[in-house]
Amino acid sequence: MKIILPSEKSIPVEPGVSVFQALKKEGVHLTSSCGGKGTCGKCKIIVKSGPVDTRSTTKLTKGEIKKGAVLACQSFPRGDIQIEIPKESELIVEGKIATGKSKDLQELLHSTGAKREPLTRRIVLQLPPPSLNDNISDLERLKREFVTKGLGCLRVPFRFLINLAGIVRKKDWEITLSTINAGDCCEITNISPGNRTSARYGIAIDIGTTTVVAYLIDLNDGTLVDIASTYNSQIQFGDDVITRIIYVEEHNALKSLHRTIIVDINDLISLLRKTHTINIDSIDSLVTAGNPTMTHIFLGLDPASIRQEPYIPTANSFPVSHAGELGIKTNPNTPVYTFPCVSSYVGGDIVSGVLASRLHKSQDLCLFMDVGTNGEIVLGNSEWLVTAACSAGPCFEGSGIRHGMRATEGAIEDVRINRKTLEPEIEIIGEGVKPLGICGSGMIDAVAEMFITGILDQKGKLQKSASDRIRDGDNGPEFVVYSGDNRDIVLTEPDIENIIRAKAAIYAGLSMLLKEMGYTFADVHRMFIAGGFGKFLDVEKAVILGMLPDIPKKKFTYLGNTSIIGAYLCTLSQNLREEAEEIAGKMTYIELSVSRSFMDEYVSGLFIPHTNIDAFPGVKKLLKK
Amino acid sequence: MKIILPSEKSIPVEPGVSVFQALKKEGVHLTSSCGGKGTCGKCKIIVKSGPVDTRSTTKLTKGEIKKGAVLACQSFPRGDIQIEIPKESELIVEGKIATGKSKDLQELLHSTGAKREPLTRRIVLQLPPPSLNDNISDLERLKREFVTKGLGCLRVPFRFLINLAGIVRKKDWEITLSTINAGDCCEITNISPGNRTSARYGIAIDIGTTTVVAYLIDLNDGTLVDIASTYNSQIQFGDDVITRIIYVEEHNALKSLHRTIIVDINDLISLLRKTHTINIDSIDSLVTAGNPTMTHIFLGLDPASIRQEPYIPTANSFPVSHAGELGIKTNPNTPVYTFPCVSSYVGGDIVSGVLASRLHKSQDLCLFMDVGTNGEIVLGNSEWLVTAACSAGPCFEGSGIRHGMRATEGAIEDVRINRKTLEPEIEIIGEGVKPLGICGSGMIDAVAEMFITGILDQKGKLQKSASDRIRDGDNGPEFVVYSGDNRDIVLTEPDIENIIRAKAAIYAGLSMLLKEMGYTFADVHRMFIAGGFGKFLDVEKAVILGMLPDIPKKKFTYLGNTSIIGAYLCTLSQNLREEAEEIAGKMTYIELSVSRSFMDEYVSGLFIPHTNIDAFPGVKKLLKK
Repeated sequence: MKIILPSEKSIPVEPGVSVFQALKKEGVHLTSSCGGKGTCGKCKIIVKSGPVDTRSTTKLTKGEIKKGAVLACQSFPRGDIQIEIPKESELIVEGKIATGKSKDLQELLHSTGAKREPLTRRIVLQLPPPSLNDNISDLERLKREFVTKGLGCLRVPFRFLINLAGIVRKKDWEITLSTINAGDCCEITNISPGNRTSARYGIAIDIGTTTVVAYLIDLNDGTLVDIASTYNSQIQFGDDVITRIIYVEEHNALKSLHRTIIVDINDLISLLRKTHTINIDSIDSLVTAGNPTMTHIFLGLDPASIRQEPYIPTANSFPVSHAGELGIKTNPNTPVYTFPCVSSYVGGDIVSGVLASRLHKSQDLCLFMDVGTNGEIVLGNSEWLVTAACSAGPCFEGSGIRHGMRATEGAIEDVRINRKTLEPEIEIIGEGVKPLGICGSGMIDAVAEMFITGILDQKGKLQKSASDRIRDGDNGPEFVVYSGDNRDIVLTEPDIENIIRAKAAIYAGLSMLLKEMGYTFADVHRMFIAGGFGKFLDVEKAVILGMLPDIPKKKFTYLGNTSIIGAYLCTLSQNLREEAEEIAGKMTYIELSVSRSFMDEYVSGLFIPHTNIDAFPGVKKLLKK
Repeated sequence: MKIILPSEKSIPVEPGVSVFQALKKEGVHLTSSCGGKGTCGKCKIIVKSGPVDTRSTTKLTKGEIKKGAVLACQSFPRGDIQIEIPKESELIVEGKIATGKSKDLQELLHSTGAKREPLTRRIVLQLPPPSLNDNISDLERLKREFVTKGLGCLRVPFRFLINLAGIVRKKDWEITLSTINAGDCCEITNISPGNRTSARYGIAIDIGTTTVVAYLIDLNDGTLVDIASTYNSQIQFGDDVITRIIYVEEHNALKSLHRTIIVDINDLISLLRKTHTINIDSIDSLVTAGNPTMTHIFLGLDPASIRQEPYIPTANSFPVSHAGELGIKTNPNTPVYTFPCVSSYVGGDIVSGVLASRLHKSQDLCLFMDVGTNGEIVLGNSEWLVTAACSAGPCFEGSGIRHGMRATEGAIEDVRINRKTLEPEIEIIGEGVKPLGICGSGMIDAVAEMFITGILDQKGKLQKSASDRIRDGDNGPEFVVYSGDNRDIVLTEPDIENIIRAKAAIYAGLSMLLKEMGYTFADVHRMFIAGGFGKFLDVEKAVILGMLPDIPKKKFTYLGNTSIIGAYLCTLSQNLREEAEEIAGKMTYIELSVSRSFMDEYVSGLFIPHTNIDAFPGVKKLLKK
């Protein structure tokens, strides 16, 4: 049996294997935020012809079903089928968007003053060929040349002897070594014949609970070449870190979860390599950042004791591992640097974020906030750093929202509601593309605007009388943000409830951490906002929503996904890897959720902007208008 | 289908699989010196009942065939069969013989003055259990305790994190580390829960071209616990190193040959472990010694350039590898120390031999000679060392000799021929056992005695008229050394030719190396003889044969298999491992075979004792009597 794509590419499929799995096996990746359980509705395909067994789903509209749409993960061919893949279902790299980001990142790297020094270096050696008079062994010849060139001592792990004889002889005794610093010595991580210095790449990976983002970085000049991202397929085992740890324990499933994230990462690497025709030996290093649970599972370490008092991870600072030990499909000797974590609940993603924000170099008091599946907050300056966690949930990354999506091409990232016509005006990521869904910044805009224009009340209920864009959907009332030929994009009342819960958790976390340390919002000199909201975050709207405090707008800086930015920086600099270790060592974790006042503060935040409207004088003024 | 043993143990067998292979798979190892090609005739079994396809062989006598004997490697069951395994076909450990050797080895180790310090040490740590106030990670806790105990810095390779959380919690935070020195730090090679210091073993392995010997050593007290040995199954690919290198090149067969020696080693380790009920985690380290080709193939390194001018090995000094990298079935992290080699033709076995002989510590000129498949000679003292090779062939190890065998239980090791009756009187290794074959020392004795008593002439031809023990066999005349109820043990004329060629090569090598360096036999203060001849070597007989020079007998010391003795020493001492590296670095290789006079000298040695009888004044005198 086979699946035929519009390109006439034919993909084999066995009975009992879903279209989703069959496509994935051949490197055609569909987007999915539920890991193939049929609950997210994102892996839609159109079956043009051929017999398919499809499980029914509430995730498709009647119109879609009429047009032949099915979920690829719930569809099992019974014979040859012809399919189409709608653009919104495809997993793609970001191309131009990445190029845009590259300049900013290179400037950021430059501004840190750090030396550009990737995890490994490449060294070309021209060995003198052996003769009867110079008949030392290949290994001794290599070490001798290394010392002669003034490169210091060279450590050669046994495995690099295996093909040494062939490699040194292949290109007339010219070889390229990749080496990593190991104490006072250089340790080999790869040997290739000839001069192999022109193409060398690093891959930085942000392993989020909900999304996984990979940066392909040119190590020769620091360019961000491209970005690929996907949902973390571990979602099939649970939405947050706690449910995943429980799943691991109850099903003895560490290997499954480990394998799942490795497969996601391999998919991203393969997509980037294919898009840019990159040889496997041109990938020199990997740098990953994730929260403690994601880091543990990624490394194959048991996360069980993270959840049990006294909450002890296996490690906070991790020895460099190799791709082969983890199952990552690059050269198995490629070193993998893992960002250090702080404690069982504050991880490498936050260390990476602080590194990217440069908060740890500030003389003044700063706040840093990273909104991912678990929201984390850091308060401090160049002297001290404290951190706390508040569970925001994954809605701003597009998960748990009907038409939610990551901030990639096709996402509505900006929504204004015309004050007169009450019609939404939208902006979409990418040039000349049709909207495919709505990302975090779009959600914040939409909800704030709907509130300001009276479409939504303080409690988050849609006011049917206020707009004829409100209609009854499968899950109750919904607001049509965009009406397209084929597909509308809506925000449902449950979507809005999710957004309000998330913003309440964030605001409660911010105010409680300040209180614990004896500060108020007024003391904050600068506030960094990180997360996968979108290209831009309209801070004003976030204040109206009650997610951010009502303080002068100029104090806010929106940084985007700082976990991946920090990973970018560490891919390129040894100094910054050292800074990351320092940040992790310096940060103190403060547990907020045990405090009763945290719950009170959270509940007060379940209104727009807040039960205590006096905390939001600007919004109050605006509402009066 | 199954094979049923006398013990009623039943062994499954698939169609097309030989009895030899089927038994091996289930851990019943038969002796074989041809690697299962059907040419050595050593893996004899008796089929009591059941259908077997058997290829015909010239290696069994008519009497044996009548009794149901077949070669296990040439027999393929067609249904259930019942078999018996004659004692001489079984691969066994040495038990008591080993116990006898142990005292000598421990005394030798003591006499070197070296500190007992195996490759790894075991350290028991009782970690303080974590609490909310002491909540550092497992890894940091481990490192902290290591430093607190004054043990210095601890390097933990990534792979040891994988099960760390489970291990530290299993026995109330008590753990046992195995560590190896790595620069200024200790590097972990194993972590186990609880106190695991009572049982710890090392395995020393001599990887010969023809035979493989393994010593099981108690690392707590230095006792040699047992010995196991087998033929090197690579013999199926060629008898000597050159033919094996050619085989590797022509058949792209490095992996096959590597796998073959690893399987042999695994068989020996499994035999030793089973006999002494040793847990896999109690094996702390492996130390191997072999010639450069055997070492390369053992490590999976391409030996091709060893054979091609300018004769360059991949390495002479080898980084420590791990059992898992090589496919050795112990804990995969068990470190494997490989003896350093000198050049493409002088290897770790000779370095190990010199170390065992202590020649490198002598003030006076000494000769060292190791007779294996390739004979090697070392001349020197504590100041300098030169070495040369002379191809002796494997006959003294029992290979290529009709009833030849290794010097293990049942081997005739001592032969005297009664001057009056001309009847041979024999001694056998082991108590109260029947002879199974003849080992090197027995061959030397027998040929020398046959020559002295006129049974053999100067050219090695049997004199039929001299003894009615000479009879016509399948390969021409043969001398019956032992006549048993079931089986005679004979030396055939081709056997004797082999022995004479071997002794001629050895003598030529010895005299040529002395000549090259400007010495004669008279300058030699002491001569060490190594090789697998037997428990004792009758030096007088070896002089009569013309293998050893006719110098005062007190100058000779027979040491046995020094390659394994050196490996024993290095299993137990870091000082001696360092000495081994020094010896290898210091030794200079001299190529003798290119010299024309070497060939002349060799041809002169094809007589007993030598064409130039005046070089053997003692033998001349004896013959006159």
